[in-house]
Amino acid sequence: MSGRLTVVGLGPGRSDWCTPAVTSRLAEATDLVGYGPYLAMVDPACRARRHPSDNRVEADRARNALDLADSGGDVVVVSSGDPGVFAMASAVLEQLAQQPDRWRNVEIDVQPGITAAQAVASRVGAPLGHDFCVLSLSDVLKPWAIIARRLDAVAGADLVIALYNPRSRHRPHQFADAIAIVARHRGPGTPVIVGRHVGRDAENVIVTDLAHLDPDTIDMSTIVVIGSSATRVIDRPPGSSVYTPRSYEPALPTAETGVAR
Amino acid sequence: MSGRLTVVGLGPGRSDWCTPAVTSRLAEATDLVGYGPYLAMVDPACRARRHPSDNRVEADRARNALDLADSGGDVVVVSSGDPGVFAMASAVLEQLAQQPDRWRNVEIDVQPGITAAQAVASRVGAPLGHDFCVLSLSDVLKPWAIIARRLDAVAGADLVIALYNPRSRHRPHQFADAIAIVARHRGPGTPVIVGRHVGRDAENVIVTDLAHLDPDTIDMSTIVVIGSSATRVIDRPPGSSVYTPRSYEPALPTAETGVAR
Repeated sequence: MSGRLTVVGLGPGRSDWCTPAVTSRLAEATDLVGYGPYLAMVDPACRARRHPSDNRVEADRARNALDLADSGGDVVVVSSGDPGVFAMASAVLEQLAQQPDRWRNVEIDVQPGITAAQAVASRVGAPLGHDFCVLSLSDVLKPWAIIARRLDAVAGADLVIALYNPRSRHRPHQFADAIAIVARHRGPGTPVIVGRHVGRDAENVIVTDLAHLDPDTIDMSTIVVIGSSATRVIDRPPGSSVYTPRSYEPALPTAETGVAR
Repeated sequence: MSGRLTVVGLGPGRSDWCTPAVTSRLAEATDLVGYGPYLAMVDPACRARRHPSDNRVEADRARNALDLADSGGDVVVVSSGDPGVFAMASAVLEQLAQQPDRWRNVEIDVQPGITAAQAVASRVGAPLGHDFCVLSLSDVLKPWAIIARRLDAVAGADLVIALYNPRSRHRPHQFADAIAIVARHRGPGTPVIVGRHVGRDAENVIVTDLAHLDPDTIDMSTIVVIGSSATRVIDRPPGSSVYTPRSYEPALPTAETGVAR
Protein backbone atom coordinates (compact mmCIF):
# COMPACT_ATOMS: atom_id res chain seq x y z
CA MET A 1 0.00 0.00 0.00
CA SER A 2 2.92 2.34 -0.68
CA GLY A 3 2.15 5.90 -1.62
CA ARG A 4 3.82 8.87 -3.19
CA LEU A 5 6.41 11.33 -1.98
CA THR A 6 6.56 14.63 -3.86
CA VAL A 7 9.28 17.15 -3.06
CA VAL A 8 8.05 20.61 -4.00
CA GLY A 9 9.47 24.13 -4.05
CA LEU A 10 7.21 27.04 -3.15
CA GLY A 11 9.51 29.53 -4.85
CA PRO A 12 11.04 32.43 -2.90
CA GLY A 13 7.92 33.54 -1.00
CA ARG A 14 5.43 35.33 -3.24
CA SER A 15 2.46 33.06 -3.75
CA ASP A 16 2.21 34.03 -7.42
CA TRP A 17 5.71 32.63 -8.01
CA CYS A 18 4.55 29.16 -6.86
CA THR A 19 3.70 26.94 -9.85
CA PRO A 20 0.21 25.48 -10.31
CA ALA A 21 1.82 22.00 -10.34
CA VAL A 22 3.03 22.59 -6.77
CA THR A 23 -0.27 24.10 -5.64
CA SER A 24 -2.08 21.08 -7.01
CA ARG A 25 0.20 18.62 -5.17
CA LEU A 26 -0.32 20.52 -1.93
CA ALA A 27 -4.09 20.33 -2.40
CA GLU A 28 -3.98 16.54 -2.93
CA ALA A 29 -1.59 15.78 -0.07
CA THR A 30 -2.45 13.80 3.05
CA ASP A 31 0.74 14.92 4.84
CA LEU A 32 3.03 17.94 4.60
CA VAL A 33 6.59 17.56 5.89
CA GLY A 34 9.07 20.41 6.15
CA TYR A 35 10.93 23.07 8.05
CA GLY A 36 8.34 24.88 10.19
CA PRO A 37 8.60 28.34 8.58
CA TYR A 38 8.16 26.82 5.10
CA LEU A 39 5.06 24.87 6.14
CA ALA A 40 3.70 28.13 7.53
CA MET A 41 3.89 29.56 3.99
CA VAL A 42 1.41 26.92 2.71
CA ASP A 43 -2.21 28.10 2.28
CA PRO A 44 -4.08 27.49 5.56
CA ALA A 45 -6.93 26.05 3.47
CA CYS A 46 -4.68 23.08 2.70
CA ARG A 47 -6.12 20.37 4.99
CA ALA A 48 -3.22 17.89 5.05
CA ARG A 49 -1.67 16.87 8.37
CA ARG A 50 1.40 19.02 8.98
CA HIS A 51 4.69 17.65 10.31
CA PRO A 52 6.92 20.67 10.97
CA SER A 53 10.54 20.18 11.99
CA ASP A 54 13.56 22.27 12.87
CA ASN A 55 16.35 23.42 10.61
CA ARG A 56 19.36 21.08 10.23
CA VAL A 57 17.37 17.86 10.72
CA GLU A 58 16.99 17.19 7.01
CA ALA A 59 17.94 13.50 7.26
CA ASP A 60 15.36 12.75 9.98
CA ARG A 61 12.75 14.73 8.08
CA ALA A 62 13.47 12.83 4.87
CA ARG A 63 13.19 9.41 6.59
CA ASN A 64 9.95 10.46 8.24
CA ALA A 65 8.51 11.55 4.92
CA LEU A 66 9.59 8.30 3.22
CA ASP A 67 7.99 6.25 6.02
CA LEU A 68 4.73 8.21 5.80
CA ALA A 69 4.64 7.62 2.04
CA ASP A 70 5.48 3.95 2.52
CA SER A 71 2.43 3.66 4.77
CA GLY A 72 0.25 4.81 1.89
CA GLY A 73 0.27 8.58 2.33
CA ASP A 74 0.35 11.18 -0.41
CA VAL A 75 3.23 13.02 1.20
CA VAL A 76 4.59 16.40 0.15
CA VAL A 77 7.98 17.58 1.39
CA VAL A 78 7.95 21.38 1.28
CA SER A 79 11.02 23.46 0.40
CA SER A 80 11.19 27.13 -0.45
CA GLY A 81 12.80 28.08 -3.75
CA ASP A 82 13.62 25.07 -5.91
CA PRO A 83 13.69 21.79 -3.94
CA GLY A 84 16.47 20.57 -6.25
CA VAL A 85 18.90 23.41 -5.39
CA PHE A 86 20.62 23.05 -1.98
CA ALA A 87 17.37 21.66 -0.59
CA MET A 88 15.24 18.67 0.32
CA ALA A 89 15.22 16.69 -2.93
CA SER A 90 18.84 15.67 -2.38
CA ALA A 91 18.18 15.00 1.31
CA VAL A 92 15.38 12.56 0.42
CA LEU A 93 17.46 10.75 -2.20
CA GLU A 94 20.47 10.52 0.14
CA GLN A 95 18.28 8.60 2.59
CA LEU A 96 16.75 6.47 -0.13
CA ALA A 97 20.23 5.52 -1.35
CA GLN A 98 21.09 4.18 2.10
CA GLN A 99 18.06 1.87 2.34
CA PRO A 100 16.71 1.39 -1.17
CA ASP A 101 14.79 -1.79 -0.29
CA ARG A 102 13.00 -0.24 2.68
CA TRP A 103 11.32 2.35 0.46
CA ARG A 104 11.36 0.38 -2.79
CA ASN A 105 7.69 0.95 -3.51
CA VAL A 106 7.46 4.65 -2.75
CA GLU A 107 6.90 6.71 -5.89
CA ILE A 108 9.23 9.73 -5.86
CA ASP A 109 8.50 12.95 -7.70
CA VAL A 110 10.17 16.37 -7.65
CA GLN A 111 8.32 19.54 -8.68
CA PRO A 112 10.65 22.45 -9.44
CA GLY A 113 10.29 26.02 -8.20
CA ILE A 114 11.78 29.44 -8.85
CA THR A 115 15.07 29.51 -6.98
CA ALA A 116 16.28 32.57 -5.08
CA ALA A 117 19.01 33.50 -7.58
CA GLN A 118 16.45 33.73 -10.40
CA ALA A 119 14.18 35.86 -8.26
CA VAL A 120 16.96 38.27 -7.25
CA ALA A 121 18.14 38.47 -10.86
CA SER A 122 14.64 39.24 -12.14
CA ARG A 123 14.35 42.18 -9.74
CA VAL A 124 17.19 44.05 -11.41
CA GLY A 125 16.99 42.75 -14.99
CA ALA A 126 19.08 39.88 -16.28
CA PRO A 127 22.45 39.48 -14.56
CA LEU A 128 22.23 35.70 -15.17
CA GLY A 129 21.74 36.28 -18.90
CA HIS A 130 24.94 34.46 -19.83
CA ASP A 131 27.05 31.60 -18.40
CA PHE A 132 26.75 31.49 -14.62
CA CYS A 133 27.26 29.31 -11.57
CA VAL A 134 25.46 28.77 -8.29
CA LEU A 135 27.67 28.12 -5.26
CA SER A 136 26.94 27.71 -1.56
CA LEU A 137 29.46 29.38 0.75
CA SER A 138 28.42 27.24 3.71
CA ASP A 139 31.31 25.20 5.03
CA VAL A 140 29.03 23.10 7.22
CA LEU A 141 28.73 20.56 4.42
CA LYS A 142 32.03 20.96 2.56
CA PRO A 143 35.58 22.05 3.41
CA TRP A 144 36.51 25.70 2.93
CA ALA A 145 39.41 24.61 0.71
CA ILE A 146 36.90 23.28 -1.82
CA ILE A 147 34.89 26.50 -1.69
CA ALA A 148 38.01 28.60 -2.21
CA ARG A 149 39.14 26.46 -5.14
CA ARG A 150 35.74 26.67 -6.80
CA LEU A 151 35.53 30.43 -6.37
CA ASP A 152 38.97 30.83 -7.90
CA ALA A 153 38.05 28.61 -10.86
CA VAL A 154 34.74 30.28 -11.71
CA ALA A 155 36.08 33.80 -11.17
CA GLY A 156 39.06 32.99 -13.40
CA ALA A 157 36.70 31.68 -16.09
CA ASP A 158 34.67 34.90 -15.85
CA LEU A 159 31.33 33.29 -14.99
CA VAL A 160 28.61 35.26 -13.25
CA ILE A 161 28.50 33.91 -9.68
CA ALA A 162 25.38 33.49 -7.51
CA LEU A 163 26.23 32.84 -3.86
CA TYR A 164 23.83 31.04 -1.50
CA ASN A 165 24.28 30.92 2.27
CA PRO A 166 26.85 33.69 1.91
CA ARG A 167 27.63 34.59 5.51
CA SER A 168 26.64 33.12 8.86
CA ARG A 169 27.32 34.28 12.39
CA HIS A 170 29.57 31.25 12.83
CA ARG A 171 31.92 32.20 9.99
CA PRO A 172 31.57 35.95 9.46
CA HIS A 173 35.12 36.41 8.11
CA GLN A 174 34.73 33.90 5.27
CA PHE A 175 32.57 36.14 3.13
CA ALA A 176 35.33 38.75 2.88
CA ASP A 177 37.78 35.94 2.06
CA ALA A 178 35.47 34.79 -0.73
CA ILE A 179 35.21 38.29 -2.18
CA ALA A 180 38.98 38.67 -2.04
CA ILE A 181 39.35 35.53 -4.17
CA VAL A 182 36.91 36.88 -6.75
CA ALA A 183 38.64 40.28 -6.71
CA ARG A 184 41.88 38.65 -7.86
CA HIS A 185 40.13 38.16 -11.23
CA ARG A 186 37.61 41.03 -11.47
CA GLY A 187 37.81 44.78 -11.32
CA PRO A 188 36.50 46.92 -8.43
CA GLY A 189 33.64 48.19 -10.58
CA THR A 190 32.21 44.71 -11.21
CA PRO A 191 28.46 44.89 -10.55
CA VAL A 192 27.18 43.07 -7.46
CA ILE A 193 23.54 42.53 -6.55
CA VAL A 194 22.53 41.85 -2.97
CA GLY A 195 19.02 40.49 -2.55
CA ARG A 196 17.42 40.09 0.86
CA HIS A 197 14.06 38.41 1.57
CA VAL A 198 13.22 38.48 -2.13
CA GLY A 199 9.54 37.77 -2.78
CA ARG A 200 8.56 38.68 0.78
CA ASP A 201 7.23 41.85 2.38
CA ALA A 202 10.68 42.79 3.64
CA GLU A 203 12.24 42.46 0.17
CA ASN A 204 15.29 44.63 -0.41
CA VAL A 205 17.54 44.43 -3.47
CA ILE A 206 20.53 46.70 -3.94
CA VAL A 207 22.99 47.11 -6.80
CA THR A 208 26.55 47.90 -5.80
CA ASP A 209 30.03 46.84 -6.97
CA LEU A 210 32.91 44.73 -5.70
CA ALA A 211 34.73 47.71 -4.21
CA HIS A 212 31.69 48.94 -2.27
CA LEU A 213 30.19 45.61 -1.17
CA ASP A 214 29.88 45.77 2.62
CA PRO A 215 30.17 42.32 4.25
CA ASP A 216 28.17 43.58 7.23
CA THR A 217 25.08 43.84 5.00
CA ILE A 218 25.32 40.13 4.14
CA ASP A 219 23.75 37.30 6.12
CA MET A 220 22.01 33.96 5.54
CA SER A 221 18.84 35.63 4.25
CA THR A 222 20.73 37.30 1.40
CA ILE A 223 21.70 36.06 -2.04
CA VAL A 224 24.69 37.72 -3.68
CA VAL A 225 25.12 37.82 -7.45
CA ILE A 226 28.53 38.93 -8.75
CA GLY A 227 28.69 39.96 -12.39
CA SER A 228 31.23 38.83 -14.97
CA SER A 229 33.53 41.31 -16.72
CA ALA A 230 30.75 41.67 -19.34
CA THR A 231 27.94 42.53 -16.89
CA ARG A 232 26.64 46.09 -17.25
CA VAL A 233 24.54 48.50 -15.20
CA ILE A 234 22.04 50.95 -16.70
CA ASP A 235 21.22 53.87 -14.45
CA ARG A 236 17.43 54.28 -14.54
CA PRO A 237 16.37 56.44 -11.61
CA PRO A 238 15.07 55.62 -9.10
CA GLY A 239 16.92 52.32 -9.59
CA SER A 240 19.40 50.48 -11.76
CA SER A 241 19.04 47.69 -14.28
CA VAL A 242 21.76 45.05 -14.55
CA TYR A 243 22.31 42.62 -17.39
CA THR A 244 24.88 40.25 -18.76
CA PRO A 245 24.81 40.40 -22.57
CA ARG A 246 24.04 37.30 -24.58
CA SER A 247 27.27 37.66 -26.51
CA TYR A 248 30.75 37.61 -25.04
CA GLU A 249 33.54 39.30 -26.97
CA PRO A 250 36.43 40.36 -24.77
CA ALA A 251 40.05 39.59 -25.54
CA LEU A 252 40.98 35.94 -25.23
CA PRO A 253 42.05 34.71 -21.81
CA THR A 254 45.69 34.67 -20.84
CA ALA A 255 47.28 32.15 -18.52
CA GLU A 256 48.42 34.79 -16.02
CA THR A 257 45.43 37.00 -15.53
CA GLY A 258 42.38 34.96 -16.34
CA VAL A 259 40.15 36.72 -18.81
CA ALA A 260 41.79 39.92 -19.95
CA ARG A 261 39.90 43.18 -19.68
CA MET B 1 1.98 58.10 -22.19
CA SER B 2 4.69 55.46 -21.78
CA GLY B 3 3.65 52.02 -20.74
CA ARG B 4 5.16 48.87 -19.34
CA LEU B 5 7.33 46.15 -20.81
CA THR B 6 7.31 42.85 -18.93
CA VAL B 7 9.64 40.04 -19.99
CA VAL B 8 8.14 36.73 -18.90
CA GLY B 9 9.17 33.08 -18.98
CA LEU B 10 6.52 30.45 -19.62
CA GLY B 11 8.70 27.71 -18.15
CA PRO B 12 9.69 24.68 -20.25
CA GLY B 13 6.30 23.92 -21.80
CA ARG B 14 3.87 22.39 -19.31
CA SER B 15 1.23 24.97 -18.51
CA ASP B 16 1.27 24.00 -14.81
CA TRP B 17 4.93 25.02 -14.60
CA CYS B 18 4.05 28.60 -15.64
CA THR B 19 3.78 30.88 -12.59
CA PRO B 20 0.52 32.72 -11.77
CA ALA B 21 2.50 36.00 -11.94
CA VAL B 22 3.25 35.30 -15.59
CA THR B 23 -0.30 34.16 -16.36
CA SER B 24 -1.61 37.35 -14.84
CA ARG B 25 0.70 39.57 -16.92
CA LEU B 26 -0.35 37.74 -20.09
CA ALA B 27 -4.02 38.35 -19.23
CA GLU B 28 -3.43 42.09 -18.73
CA ALA B 29 -1.27 42.62 -21.83
CA THR B 30 -2.25 44.70 -24.85
CA ASP B 31 0.60 43.24 -26.96
CA LEU B 32 2.55 39.99 -26.95
CA VAL B 33 5.97 39.98 -28.60
CA GLY B 34 8.11 36.88 -29.12
CA TYR B 35 9.45 34.04 -31.18
CA GLY B 36 6.46 32.54 -33.02
CA PRO B 37 6.51 29.07 -31.42
CA TYR B 38 6.60 30.61 -27.91
CA LEU B 39 3.64 32.89 -28.65
CA ALA B 40 1.79 29.80 -29.86
CA MET B 41 2.19 28.35 -26.33
CA VAL B 42 0.18 31.23 -24.82
CA ASP B 43 -3.47 30.45 -24.00
CA PRO B 44 -5.60 31.26 -27.09
CA ALA B 45 -8.03 32.99 -24.72
CA CYS B 46 -5.43 35.72 -24.21
CA ARG B 47 -6.78 38.56 -26.35
CA ALA B 48 -3.67 40.72 -26.74
CA ARG B 49 -2.36 41.58 -30.21
CA ARG B 50 0.36 39.11 -31.13
CA HIS B 51 3.62 40.11 -32.80
CA PRO B 52 5.43 36.88 -33.68
CA SER B 53 8.95 36.98 -35.09
CA ASP B 54 11.61 34.56 -36.25
CA ASN B 55 14.48 33.12 -34.30
CA ARG B 56 17.75 35.13 -34.27
CA VAL B 57 16.08 38.55 -34.57
CA GLU B 58 16.20 39.22 -30.83
CA ALA B 59 17.50 42.80 -31.19
CA ASP B 60 14.75 43.82 -33.63
CA ARG B 61 12.15 42.14 -31.47
CA ALA B 62 13.41 43.94 -28.36
CA ARG B 63 13.33 47.36 -30.04
CA ASN B 64 9.85 46.68 -31.35
CA ALA B 65 8.65 45.74 -27.88
CA LEU B 66 10.24 48.85 -26.33
CA ASP B 67 8.59 51.09 -28.95
CA LEU B 68 5.19 49.47 -28.37
CA ALA B 69 5.55 50.05 -24.64
CA ASP B 70 6.73 53.61 -25.22
CA SER B 71 3.50 54.24 -27.14
CA GLY B 72 1.53 53.33 -24.06
CA GLY B 73 1.10 49.57 -24.46
CA ASP B 74 1.18 46.97 -21.71
CA VAL B 75 3.65 44.84 -23.61
CA VAL B 76 4.74 41.32 -22.69
CA VAL B 77 7.82 39.79 -24.27
CA VAL B 78 7.40 36.02 -24.13
CA SER B 79 10.31 33.61 -23.57
CA SER B 80 10.17 29.95 -22.73
CA GLY B 81 11.99 28.79 -19.60
CA ASP B 82 13.37 31.70 -17.55
CA PRO B 83 13.58 34.96 -19.56
CA GLY B 84 16.71 35.84 -17.55
CA VAL B 85 18.71 32.77 -18.65
CA PHE B 86 20.08 32.96 -22.24
CA ALA B 87 16.88 34.70 -23.27
CA MET B 88 15.00 37.91 -23.98
CA ALA B 89 15.54 39.86 -20.75
CA SER B 90 19.18 40.49 -21.69
CA ALA B 91 18.21 41.25 -25.29
CA VAL B 92 15.80 43.96 -24.13
CA LEU B 93 18.33 45.53 -21.75
CA GLU B 94 21.08 45.44 -24.40
CA GLN B 95 18.86 47.60 -26.61
CA LEU B 96 17.86 49.85 -23.75
CA ALA B 97 21.53 50.45 -22.92
CA GLN B 98 22.16 51.70 -26.46
CA GLN B 99 19.40 54.31 -26.39
CA PRO B 100 18.49 54.93 -22.76
CA ASP B 101 16.85 58.29 -23.45
CA ARG B 102 14.61 56.96 -26.21
CA TRP B 103 12.89 54.57 -23.81
CA ARG B 104 13.48 56.48 -20.59
CA ASN B 105 9.87 56.32 -19.48
CA VAL B 106 9.16 52.67 -20.19
CA GLU B 107 8.71 50.67 -17.00
CA ILE B 108 10.69 47.41 -17.26
CA ASP B 109 9.80 44.28 -15.31
CA VAL B 110 11.08 40.71 -15.52
CA GLN B 111 9.02 37.76 -14.28
CA PRO B 112 11.09 34.61 -13.75
CA GLY B 113 10.20 31.11 -14.92
CA ILE B 114 11.38 27.54 -14.42
CA THR B 115 14.42 27.11 -16.64
CA ALA B 116 15.08 23.94 -18.63
CA ALA B 117 17.94 22.71 -16.42
CA GLN B 118 15.69 22.75 -13.36
CA ALA B 119 12.98 20.89 -15.23
CA VAL B 120 15.36 18.20 -16.52
CA ALA B 121 16.88 17.86 -13.06
CA SER B 122 13.49 17.45 -11.41
CA ARG B 123 12.61 14.59 -13.75
CA VAL B 124 15.39 12.40 -12.38
CA GLY B 125 15.71 13.69 -8.80
CA ALA B 126 18.24 16.31 -7.76
CA PRO B 127 21.44 16.35 -9.84
CA LEU B 128 21.69 20.14 -9.21
CA GLY B 129 21.54 19.59 -5.45
CA HIS B 130 24.99 21.04 -4.87
CA ASP B 131 27.25 23.66 -6.54
CA PHE B 132 26.56 23.83 -10.27
CA CYS B 133 26.98 25.95 -13.37
CA VAL B 134 24.91 26.70 -16.44
CA LEU B 135 26.83 27.12 -19.70
CA SER B 136 25.77 27.63 -23.29
CA LEU B 137 27.82 25.72 -25.85
CA SER B 138 26.72 27.96 -28.69
CA ASP B 139 29.66 29.68 -30.33
CA VAL B 140 27.39 32.02 -32.29
CA LEU B 141 27.67 34.57 -29.47
CA LYS B 142 31.09 33.80 -27.99
CA PRO B 143 34.38 32.33 -29.20
CA TRP B 144 34.93 28.59 -28.81
CA ALA B 145 38.18 29.35 -26.93
CA ILE B 146 36.12 30.94 -24.14
CA ILE B 147 33.76 27.97 -24.03
CA ALA B 148 36.67 25.53 -23.83
CA ARG B 149 38.34 27.51 -21.08
CA ARG B 150 35.13 27.67 -19.04
CA LEU B 151 34.46 23.95 -19.41
CA ASP B 152 37.99 23.18 -18.27
CA ALA B 153 37.64 25.47 -15.24
CA VAL B 154 34.28 24.16 -14.02
CA ALA B 155 35.15 20.53 -14.69
CA GLY B 156 38.42 20.99 -12.79
CA ALA B 157 36.54 22.55 -9.88
CA ASP B 158 34.14 19.56 -9.88
CA LEU B 159 30.92 21.53 -10.39
CA VAL B 160 27.83 19.88 -11.80
CA ILE B 161 27.49 21.25 -15.36
CA ALA B 162 24.23 22.03 -17.17
CA LEU B 163 24.75 22.59 -20.90
CA TYR B 164 22.33 24.66 -23.00
CA ASN B 165 22.39 24.76 -26.83
CA PRO B 166 24.66 21.72 -26.70
CA ARG B 167 24.94 20.76 -30.36
CA SER B 168 23.77 22.32 -33.59
CA ARG B 169 23.94 21.10 -37.18
CA HIS B 170 26.44 23.86 -37.90
CA ARG B 171 28.97 22.66 -35.32
CA PRO B 172 28.27 18.97 -34.70
CA HIS B 173 31.87 18.13 -33.72
CA GLN B 174 32.07 20.65 -30.88
CA PHE B 175 29.92 18.64 -28.51
CA ALA B 176 32.39 15.75 -28.54
CA ASP B 177 35.21 18.27 -28.00
CA ALA B 178 33.34 19.65 -24.98
CA ILE B 179 32.85 16.20 -23.51
CA ALA B 180 36.53 15.41 -24.04
CA ILE B 181 37.45 18.49 -21.98
CA VAL B 182 35.17 17.40 -19.14
CA ALA B 183 36.51 13.82 -19.35
CA ARG B 184 40.01 15.09 -18.55
CA HIS B 185 38.70 15.75 -15.03
CA ARG B 186 35.91 13.18 -14.50
CA GLY B 187 35.68 9.41 -14.64
CA PRO B 188 33.85 7.46 -17.37
CA GLY B 189 31.11 6.49 -14.90
CA THR B 190 30.15 10.11 -14.15
CA PRO B 191 26.34 10.34 -14.43
CA VAL B 192 24.96 12.30 -17.36
CA ILE B 193 21.31 13.24 -17.88
CA VAL B 194 20.01 14.04 -21.34
CA GLY B 195 16.65 15.78 -21.39
CA ARG B 196 14.76 16.38 -24.60
CA HIS B 197 11.55 18.42 -24.98
CA VAL B 198 11.09 18.43 -21.21
CA GLY B 199 7.62 19.54 -20.18
CA ARG B 200 6.17 18.76 -23.61
CA ASP B 201 4.34 15.76 -25.04
CA ALA B 202 7.51 14.45 -26.65
CA GLU B 203 9.46 14.60 -23.35
CA ASN B 204 12.29 12.09 -23.10
CA VAL B 205 14.85 12.03 -20.30
CA ILE B 206 17.61 9.43 -20.13
CA VAL B 207 20.30 8.74 -17.56
CA THR B 208 23.64 7.58 -18.91
CA ASP B 209 27.31 8.24 -18.12
CA LEU B 210 30.25 10.03 -19.70
CA ALA B 211 31.57 6.86 -21.37
CA HIS B 212 28.23 6.01 -22.97
CA LEU B 213 26.99 9.47 -23.92
CA ASP B 214 26.26 9.38 -27.65
CA PRO B 215 26.76 12.79 -29.33
CA ASP B 216 24.33 11.77 -32.08
CA THR B 217 21.48 11.83 -29.53
CA ILE B 218 22.20 15.50 -28.72
CA ASP B 219 20.75 18.50 -30.53
CA MET B 220 19.47 22.00 -29.79
CA SER B 221 16.28 20.70 -28.16
CA THR B 222 18.27 18.81 -25.51
CA ILE B 223 19.72 19.90 -22.21
CA VAL B 224 22.68 17.91 -20.90
CA VAL B 225 23.50 17.74 -17.18
CA ILE B 226 26.88 16.26 -16.25
CA GLY B 227 27.32 15.20 -12.64
CA SER B 228 30.22 16.04 -10.35
CA SER B 229 32.40 13.31 -8.85
CA ALA B 230 29.90 13.24 -5.95
CA THR B 231 26.76 12.72 -8.08
CA ARG B 232 25.13 9.32 -7.56
CA VAL B 233 22.57 7.15 -9.35
CA ILE B 234 20.00 4.98 -7.58
CA ASP B 235 18.63 2.18 -9.71
CA ARG B 236 14.85 2.20 -9.24
CA PRO B 237 13.25 0.17 -12.03
CA PRO B 238 11.79 1.15 -14.39
CA GLY B 239 14.04 4.23 -14.12
CA SER B 240 16.92 5.76 -12.22
CA SER B 241 17.14 8.56 -9.70
CA VAL B 242 20.14 10.88 -9.73
CA TYR B 243 21.25 13.21 -6.97
CA THR B 244 24.20 15.30 -5.90
CA PRO B 245 24.51 15.13 -2.12
CA ARG B 246 24.30 18.28 -0.06
CA SER B 247 27.67 17.55 1.51
CA TYR B 248 30.95 17.22 -0.33
CA GLU B 249 33.70 15.18 1.27
CA PRO B 250 36.16 13.83 -1.25
CA ALA B 251 39.90 14.14 -0.96
CA LEU B 252 41.23 17.62 -1.47
CA PRO B 253 42.02 18.66 -5.02
CA THR B 254 45.50 18.27 -6.39
CA ALA B 255 47.10 20.54 -8.94
CA GLU B 256 47.61 17.75 -11.48
CA THR B 257 44.34 15.92 -11.55
CA GLY B 258 41.64 18.31 -10.39
CA VAL B 259 39.57 16.79 -7.65
CA ALA B 260 40.97 13.41 -6.68
CA ARG B 261 38.70 10.41 -6.64
